Amino acid sequence: MTQATWRRWTDWPLAGLAVLFLVAYSWEVIGQLHGAAERVSETIEWVSWSAFAIDYVVSLVLAQPRWRWFYTHLIDLAIVALPVLRPLRLLRVAAAFTVLQRRTGTALRGRVIAYAIGAGLLLIYVSALAELNAEQARGHIKTIWQALWWSVVTITTTGYGDYTPVTATGKLIAVCVMFGGVALIGVVSATLASWIVERVVEDDEAETQVVTALELQELRDEIRALRLELERRSTDESG
Amino acid sequence: MTQATWRRWTDWPLAGLAVLFLVAYSWEVIGQLHGAAERVSETIEWVSWSAFAIDYVVSLVLAQPRWRWFYTHLIDLAIVALPVLRPLRLLRVAAAFTVLQRRTGTALRGRVIAYAIGAGLLLIYVSALAELNAEQARGHIKTIWQALWWSVVTITTTGYGDYTPVTATGKLIAVCVMFGGVALIGVVSATLASWIVERVVEDDEAETQVVTALELQELRDEIRALRLELERRSTDESG
Amino acid sequence: MTQATWRRWTDWPLAGLAVLFLVAYSWEVIGQLHGAAERVSETIEWVSWSAFAIDYVVSLVLAQPRWRWFYTHLIDLAIVALPVLRPLRLLRVAAAFTVLQRRTGTALRGRVIAYAIGAGLLLIYVSALAELNAEQARGHIKTIWQALWWSVVTITTTGYGDYTPVTATGKLIAVCVMFGGVALIGVVSATLASWIVERVVEDDEAETQVVTALELQELRDEIRALRLELERRSTDESG
Amino acid sequence: MTQATWRRWTDWPLAGLAVLFLVAYSWEVIGQLHGAAERVSETIEWVSWSAFAIDYVVSLVLAQPRWRWFYTHLIDLAIVALPVLRPLRLLRVAAAFTVLQRRTGTALRGRVIAYAIGAGLLLIYVSALAELNAEQARGHIKTIWQALWWSVVTITTTGYGDYTPVTATGKLIAVCVMFGGVALIGVVSATLASWIVERVVEDDEAETQVVTALELQELRDEIRALRLELERRSTDESG
Repeated sequence: MTQATWRRWTDWPLAGLAVLFLVAYSWEVIGQLHGAAERVSETIEWVSWSAFAIDYVVSLVLAQPRWRWFYTHLIDLAIVALPVLRPLRLLRVAAAFTVLQRRTGTALRGRVIAYAIGAGLLLIYVSALAELNAEQARGHIKTIWQALWWSVVTITTTGYGDYTPVTATGKLIAVCVMFGGVALIGVVSATLASWIVERVVEDDEAETQVVTALELQELRDEIRALRLELERRSTDESG
Repeated sequence: MTQATWRRWTDWPLAGLAVLFLVAYSWEVIGQLHGAAERVSETIEWVSWSAFAIDYVVSLVLAQPRWRWFYTHLIDLAIVALPVLRPLRLLRVAAAFTVLQRRTGTALRGRVIAYAIGAGLLLIYVSALAELNAEQARGHIKTIWQALWWSVVTITTTGYGDYTPVTATGKLIAVCVMFGGVALIGVVSATLASWIVERVVEDDEAETQVVTALELQELRDEIRALRLELERRSTDESG
Repeated sequence: MTQATWRRWTDWPLAGLAVLFLVAYSWEVIGQLHGAAERVSETIEWVSWSAFAIDYVVSLVLAQPRWRWFYTHLIDLAIVALPVLRPLRLLRVAAAFTVLQRRTGTALRGRVIAYAIGAGLLLIYVSALAELNAEQARGHIKTIWQALWWSVVTITTTGYGDYTPVTATGKLIAVCVMFGGVALIGVVSATLASWIVERVVEDDEAETQVVTALELQELRDEIRALRLELERRSTDESG
Repeated sequence: MTQATWRRWTDWPLAGLAVLFLVAYSWEVIGQLHGAAERVSETIEWVSWSAFAIDYVVSLVLAQPRWRWFYTHLIDLAIVALPVLRPLRLLRVAAAFTVLQRRTGTALRGRVIAYAIGAGLLLIYVSALAELNAEQARGHIKTIWQALWWSVVTITTTGYGDYTPVTATGKLIAVCVMFGGVALIGVVSATLASWIVERVVEDDEAETQVVTALELQELRDEIRALRLELERRSTDESG
């Protein structure tokens, strides 16, 4: 069995498990579960972890230049190792929807935008959950709404400072969100810049194209004149 | 009647209503109106809402591929649904003024800049109004000047934290302003980048053009020599 | 007399006056002058203002399409109207030093960088002065060092919030600094982007050039073969 | 001996000394050393300083257009003058690893990314150390973790304001980190923009290439027809 076949069969079930994990994790953190409910949500988290771990091992075994796959898929290893990153799996499915677009330039940008929005929203929500989990015992962030507010204030690099993490875990998550924010500004700038540059270059190229085509036309006329000259002479000789 | 005809007749009256709405809304929020004055401003807001709603329904009915128009004009639906967004209508008129510009590259950038400045100023003013409306009862933002100051501090992602929203509505508006700020940085970067890239590329292209033209010239010379050779032979034979 | 002649004669004296103004203004604000010293610094400020005002009027009178000059030089009007902007005049001289650079792409970027660094440093220093002037009576900013620290924290959009303006004038200056900060990020991004894009495009163009040159070579070979064929036939006929 | 030979022999030992300096400096600042341990770490710092100073002088003596080298290597002078900058030396070695990459466009971007990540991490760590050194006596930053947290909050221009420097040295370091943050956003935006622009341009060029190749093909066909015409006539005459 090739890796592609494995992918085709496992992509959607794993995306489903990622959603399930997200729901269970949200339920556990926001609801501050105890007793039976906590055990249910933890079971779901363990099942999803096992599925992701198995998928990683099988993918690694099936990968053809195995070390290359390992190096280029460190993010998949991180998804297995860090539960918080597991919902990132959903981005792979999100990418599938953008395949439908037509023109290459637009399609690339469309994919970048879709990824950025998807990754941004996931980062905001998941980091809010993880921050709430880390801070609600000893920090200032007590509800999911405060956590989401903190998350947006941080990812946009606004940084009011009305809510700041105080625990080590909370600060580590905040560092990821801040660099995510720098990346967000970068993606927005880059996508807009590429769009404007392309539009401007297209207009310029239209002009350049005409010039070259004209010059080639002159060349063609020259050659046609040459052929006519030959034909005229041919007729002269025959006549 | 086509949608274009409808547009031509309604664009300016609706822009006027948007201005009227902005004035009435500002008056109501800043003046903290009560009694008769409040009823007047609310009547204006209702009239403008009705006009926008009717325009949306008529535009949707007249649109040719109706679903496509619906998907590509979700912003118009939002303008009807969220009163705060209504002044955005003015951007459509602002765009009309930029049509006058000549060269395409410059014109596109000019339109992007005009939109960005227009949208930025509207966002700052309207979000300040909405924030004041949401916060003045229970928050720290009590006057329109404080609200405008907060709005600028937030949209530039400076985020001093001297004024921060405390109500849910206030925070929701702040989230929009923050992402507006990220977009603002993106637009400024992108417009400048496109301008510099274009200027640099133009200089480079001038050189590239010369090279290609020279090569084509060589080719043309070769062919001319060929034709002369033919003519010379023709003369020899005749002679 | 043309505007260019006037420029040539007045550029350096006015730049000197701008420096003098900056020194006098710094001295007045930082030293919190009173009595004779204050009158001296105010005299220097009035003299420099008169010189700038005269220069503006003469430039406007000498400008050929006068309205066009007026519209494209609103910044000069602002320099006369707002004393704080007067040192901006120095940027014009700074630009003169960058003319020495050779290649166009590099020269444009060099000029943009020189302008950005010059404008950035001037903005930081002048806004710190103006902020100190506005805030030292009733605000938290009491020394020039605090003002400079606040200025850098604001222009980089970091916004710690340890020093924030409380007066209306102070806030107005802060708004300019914040938007200056957004422009600064934009210029840095744009300059770097243009540099990377150009380097990458140059490498690509080298390849593209080779391909086209090869194709033209093939074409030339084809034509050369044609000429040889003609010559061979010519020899056959003669033989 | 040429400068290149000197470089080849001294690059790795100096990189090693830079690491050693970083370790000794970290040990001294974080451990708040006293007595013998402090003397050991200070000896290491002095030895590394001497080595860097000697390397600078020798490089300057060996440099061919000496003044040009001086102007283009002011950063090396700063590395000798400011101990805090010494670890920057490591970036030169980091650059060596990126030489392995293949395609030019990708290689340039790879080098920029490697430099940016290396410089960013070094800036975060070294500025945290220096800030801790400056602030731990009289400021709010007491541990290396607080310093690292402050450093990340500042370099991403988030600026919560939960930890801010209060000493003059601490503020000076903070100014460098803030401008480093603006540069970081610029590099991220620029690299992404260049990547998207290149990908889009490549796709466009593929199309443009086809058009031009087609036109050249038509030209070639025209010439081939001409040659066949000549050959046909040649056969006719012989027959």
